[in-house]
Amino acid sequence: MHFSIHRPTFIKALNIVMRAISSRTTIPILTNVKITLNQDELILTGSNVDISIETRILQSDTSAQLDIQTTGGITLPAAFFTNIIKHLPDENLTLSTEGLRALITSGSASFNINGQDVQNYPHLPEMEDIQSLKVSAAQLNELISQTKISASTQESRPILTGMHLELAGNSVKAVATDSHRLSQRIVTLTGTETTVNADVIIPAKSFNELQPLLEGQDRVDIKLAANQAVFDLDHTSFYSRLLEGNYPETDRLIPSESATEMKIDAAHLLGAIDRASLLSHESRNNVVQLLLSQGKAELSGNSQEIGQVKETLPVKSVVGEDLDISFNPDYVRDALRVLNGKTVELKFTTNLRPFIIIPEGETDNKQLQLITPVRTF
Amino acid sequence: MHFSIHRPTFIKALNIVMRAISSRTTIPILTNVKITLNQDELILTGSNVDISIETRILQSDTSAQLDIQTTGGITLPAAFFTNIIKHLPDENLTLSTEGLRALITSGSASFNINGQDVQNYPHLPEMEDIQSLKVSAAQLNELISQTKISASTQESRPILTGMHLELAGNSVKAVATDSHRLSQRIVTLTGTETTVNADVIIPAKSFNELQPLLEGQDRVDIKLAANQAVFDLDHTSFYSRLLEGNYPETDRLIPSESATEMKIDAAHLLGAIDRASLLSHESRNNVVQLLLSQGKAELSGNSQEIGQVKETLPVKSVVGEDLDISFNPDYVRDALRVLNGKTVELKFTTNLRPFIIIPEGETDNKQLQLITPVRTF
Repeated sequence: MHFSIHRPTFIKALNIVMRAISSRTTIPILTNVKITLNQDELILTGSNVDISIETRILQSDTSAQLDIQTTGGITLPAAFFTNIIKHLPDENLTLSTEGLRALITSGSASFNINGQDVQNYPHLPEMEDIQSLKVSAAQLNELISQTKISASTQESRPILTGMHLELAGNSVKAVATDSHRLSQRIVTLTGTETTVNADVIIPAKSFNELQPLLEGQDRVDIKLAANQAVFDLDHTSFYSRLLEGNYPETDRLIPSESATEMKIDAAHLLGAIDRASLLSHESRNNVVQLLLSQGKAELSGNSQEIGQVKETLPVKSVVGEDLDISFNPDYVRDALRVLNGKTVELKFTTNLRPFIIIPEGETDNKQLQLITPVRTF
Repeated sequence: MHFSIHRPTFIKALNIVMRAISSRTTIPILTNVKITLNQDELILTGSNVDISIETRILQSDTSAQLDIQTTGGITLPAAFFTNIIKHLPDENLTLSTEGLRALITSGSASFNINGQDVQNYPHLPEMEDIQSLKVSAAQLNELISQTKISASTQESRPILTGMHLELAGNSVKAVATDSHRLSQRIVTLTGTETTVNADVIIPAKSFNELQPLLEGQDRVDIKLAANQAVFDLDHTSFYSRLLEGNYPETDRLIPSESATEMKIDAAHLLGAIDRASLLSHESRNNVVQLLLSQGKAELSGNSQEIGQVKETLPVKSVVGEDLDISFNPDYVRDALRVLNGKTVELKFTTNLRPFIIIPEGETDNKQLQLITPVRTF
């Protein structure tokens, strides 16, 4: 292998595949980046147990200044190699291999780095029985942001670390829950050419790495197979494994009636939640208290050691029965952040049953955050 | 105590005294900030074992909107209190005390915080037998930056964690050394009204907190007493304890002759050092090698496991005897950073003796970085 390339273009591609590469892995070669050079393109690959990313730099892209001398491949220690590339002195660099050693030159600097055989690098998953659909990158990004907050980060029930996606025709329903809270978003895909019927569970943390790649993209081509999902962007393919198992039935958890309702600007409630949690975070059980009565709302937080905070909320309305309810402020904060800039409705039944937060006027639970209160008595 | 104040002004003052407050201290009350309200000013105080900072907000400063109702004082948990103040909803806040509780209100939010008696807060050190001088803040800042890099961070020889300042007339000599490297800066004070003769050792880490306060200041009033130094800025007094003991005689460590000299742009050498240290940092002993011969210079770094880097340096000149010398690249990097933007001279005697880095044309060791090489054979 022997090529030279425009360094900033190469760094950009490395940064993309680095999202899939972890220094903590039980498979040593996965700490490496795989570099493959064909007749007309350079391919970089990074992978971990959950996701794999492959990105291509085409010879036809003149800004990349990709000059291919000899095709071939090698894998190199990813973090270290990227660091070297970023520190090179010149606008361009040359990379050539001799056996399992790579020689990198740029300006007056030359690095000799030990690599590993590209043959030992795991193959990307084969995709069979594919269903595919094209979606708007912005719409996908919003759907992910509004639901992933409720996915569990604990492996005790692995299925809850995933996001449940049900695709039927041009409708997508996304649900995540850690059993204390639940987020649901239903969207109608705009400008979709094909319709798909599928039911998949994607690890929520895969989306942490996908979302930055969606920025500035127009459309994404999603391919779903039996145990993989692939998101195809310009020159980049993002693979995520699917979680196996049955996702719990969540529709029955969502209350259909309410006894007390509060309307408030999301930013105002968020500010008060932040202040109340300054104290609840210092206490043992991280709970704040909301009192709703006679059209008014008061939020308070306590810490035996430090003190207390109390605040009358600038509500738009409070209607229904009086309520004294306690909850984890962090859950409400996460929910309000994804609804920021909007007026929200909080709908309660009793202080022991889950309550929901929805944008004002939203119907059919298309954009819903559900939170289970905490019993404090 | 009862006052109201413009919140951004209060936050600015809190941020200043927070520099002296550590959450890790053996004296619990020092995790608090002391708040004292007089007839015409609010005083905030923070302190740890090394430094104390006192800053004043004057009633006469109309932008502070300081409205004094009742004088008094309290100490409150500093990190927590500052966090509360930053999260308050309104432009102004009111703070009042009832016994050892503080009530903080702003807009619709009200906090009740437990404090401690201001009487239990340690007094600031008394200053006796003071010598004082006025210096340019910019000149003091440069003097600190160019020397503190060589102060030891290890407590095995406490005296070496200090910066040695010798003041004689309007000349100041600053020296720091951790016994592997040494930094020296001699300046002639400009526009000084008084002259001082003093020999003090100030903990180098005190300067980490002083330097940000020097930004944007014109002149600093320095007061030196037997065991304290005070730096007086606008409305803020910065106290640092002095280190006791005799600072080692350092003049004899500085070589007066050289056998080999190299001139190079500091930024070019810094880039090459950064690249070579990518590999040396991966090896056991963190050493890079410099070869000087026949007007040329080559820098290299090695890691048995990963590989090697070699680079011909873009020197302005190399004169004198051939040399093969090894050193810790981090020491050279620190030295070059404070000389960045300049052409530097490196002056060597043998590969076992310390070498010096000075700005091109500098004489009399007024701006000098000395580094001990590493023996690799």
